[in-house]
Amino acid sequence: MADNSTRTVFFVSDGTGITVETLGHSLLSHFPNVQVQQERVPFVDSLDKAMACQRKIREARMKGGVRPIVFTSVVDPQVLEVLRQADAMFLDMLEKFISPLEQELGEASTHTVGRFHGVTDSQDYKKRIEAINFALIHDDGVTDAELAKADVILVGVSRSGKTPTSLYLAMQFGVKVANYPLIPEDFERMELPPALARHKGKLFGLSIDPERLRQIRQERRPDSRYASIGNCRHEVDAAQRMMRREGIRWLDSTTKSIEEISATIMQEVRLNPHGY
Amino acid sequence: MADNSTRTVFFVSDGTGITVETLGHSLLSHFPNVQVQQERVPFVDSLDKAMACQRKIREARMKGGVRPIVFTSVVDPQVLEVLRQADAMFLDMLEKFISPLEQELGEASTHTVGRFHGVTDSQDYKKRIEAINFALIHDDGVTDAELAKADVILVGVSRSGKTPTSLYLAMQFGVKVANYPLIPEDFERMELPPALARHKGKLFGLSIDPERLRQIRQERRPDSRYASIGNCRHEVDAAQRMMRREGIRWLDSTTKSIEEISATIMQEVRLNPHGY
Repeated sequence: MADNSTRTVFFVSDGTGITVETLGHSLLSHFPNVQVQQERVPFVDSLDKAMACQRKIREARMKGGVRPIVFTSVVDPQVLEVLRQADAMFLDMLEKFISPLEQELGEASTHTVGRFHGVTDSQDYKKRIEAINFALIHDDGVTDAELAKADVILVGVSRSGKTPTSLYLAMQFGVKVANYPLIPEDFERMELPPALARHKGKLFGLSIDPERLRQIRQERRPDSRYASIGNCRHEVDAAQRMMRREGIRWLDSTTKSIEEISATIMQEVRLNPHGY
Repeated sequence: MADNSTRTVFFVSDGTGITVETLGHSLLSHFPNVQVQQERVPFVDSLDKAMACQRKIREARMKGGVRPIVFTSVVDPQVLEVLRQADAMFLDMLEKFISPLEQELGEASTHTVGRFHGVTDSQDYKKRIEAINFALIHDDGVTDAELAKADVILVGVSRSGKTPTSLYLAMQFGVKVANYPLIPEDFERMELPPALARHKGKLFGLSIDPERLRQIRQERRPDSRYASIGNCRHEVDAAQRMMRREGIRWLDSTTKSIEEISATIMQEVRLNPHGY
C-alpha cells in the first residue's frame, strides 16, 4: 500500500475545513518527499453531502492506485460512517483528542457541528473584525490621536513588511496594529517622528536586508532612486541606528514569514489576544 | 482532578504555535462550559526554553489547583521530555498523527523543527504575499485591466464585508481577490458596471441584512442618508435583484464569519489554492 507516488489528501469537515486543513498541512510538512494533491471538502453536514464526499474519495482511490489520506473533523457519527465506507486512511482530529479531553474535564463535549457557527456574535470575532478595519485605516502613518488606540505600532522603512504583518496580527489575534513609516526626513533630523515619541512602549520595528528591499521596491517603482541599492542601504542602516538609539525592539523580516513575525511580536510585546 | 473551574491551557510549539493553537481552540470549542485561560508559548526550540516553559506550566499547576492542559507540536524529544516533567495533561499533535502517517507513507518524517522555517522561499508563500498586496491595491473598484488579473471579484453594496473577505482569502488561500462596489448609479442604470460585465465568471456577490448594514454604516457616517434604514433597504434589495438577474452567485454575509464566507467562495468558484 505504501509508496511515494502522488497521494490524494482530503480535508473533510462539517465547518469550513480550515482547522483540519491547517493541521494536515503542518503534519504533511514533515514528509517533504511525498507528492500530494489536496482537496478541501467543507460543510459536509448531511448524509447527502457525506455520500457525495465518499464518492470523491472512492474516485481518487481508483485513479491514484493508492488509498487517499482523509483528515476529518466531522462530529456527526452517521456522516462519519458514510465517509468511512470508502477505502482510505482516516485521521480523525476529534477522535484522537475529544475523549481524553472529556475525561480530563469531567464533562461531555457538546458535539457541536461546525465550530464557526454563531461565532460572529462572539466578542473575539468582533475584536478581529474591528482590528482588520483598524489596520486598514491606520496604514502608513496616522495622527497621534489614532496611535493612542493602537495595541502595537509597527515602524520601519517603506516596504519592510509592516502592512501584511499588521493585517495578519489583526486577523489571527484581533490585535489593533497601526503602522508608521520611517522616512529620510526622520533620519536627517536624527530623531523619531514626534507622533511616535509619545508611544514608545508600543513600538516594534521591522528591518530588512537592503538587497531584498531593493528587489521589492524595484517591482513598485522600477529604476527609481527610491529603489536603488545605495538608497536602500542608507535607509535600512539609518533606521536600524535609530531603533537601537531609541531602544525600540525590532527584528529582521527578510527570511521570516508573516506568521513568524507576528508570533514574535505577540511574544515580545506580551500582548494577550484574549484579554487575560 | 477533573472539575469545572478555570483551566490553564498552553499551546507549546517549536515554531509559531499557530497550528497547535488553532487545533486547540477548535477542540476546546466543544466544551463551551469550561472556563479557560490560554497561553501561547512559541519558539520552544532549546533545552533552556523548555525549562522556562516547564516552570510556567508548574506555576499554573500550583496556582490553579488543577493540572493544566498542554497542547504541543514540539519535534525534539529532549525538549518534550523536559516539558513532560511538569504535572499536566499533554495532548501531542505530532505523537497522535506522525507515526500512523509514517506507516502509511512508508517513510520516516523529517522531524523538522518549526514548520514555517524556510517557508518564505516557497511558491505558496510568495503567492499569499502577492495576493495580500493585490487585495490592498484592488480594494473598492479598479480598472478593467486589473480585474483581468483577479481570481475572484467580490461585488456588493458598500460595507457588505467585501474587504475583510478579500484579505482573508488572500492570506489563507493565496487567492487574488479584487472587490467592486455596487452603487446607486448601477441600480438606476439597471445594469452591471461595464468593467464587471466582461468578467462575469469571476463575480461573487455578498449581501447583508439591511438592519445590520444600517448599524455598520451608522458607525462610519452617523445619521447620514447613506446609513438610513430606508436607503440600506433600497440598496440591498436593488443589489440582490441585479445579482439574480445577472446570474451572479451570492451569499448573505450577515451571520457568517469571514472564514465561512471564504470557504464557501472557494467551494463555489472551484478555486484551487494550490494550483492543482
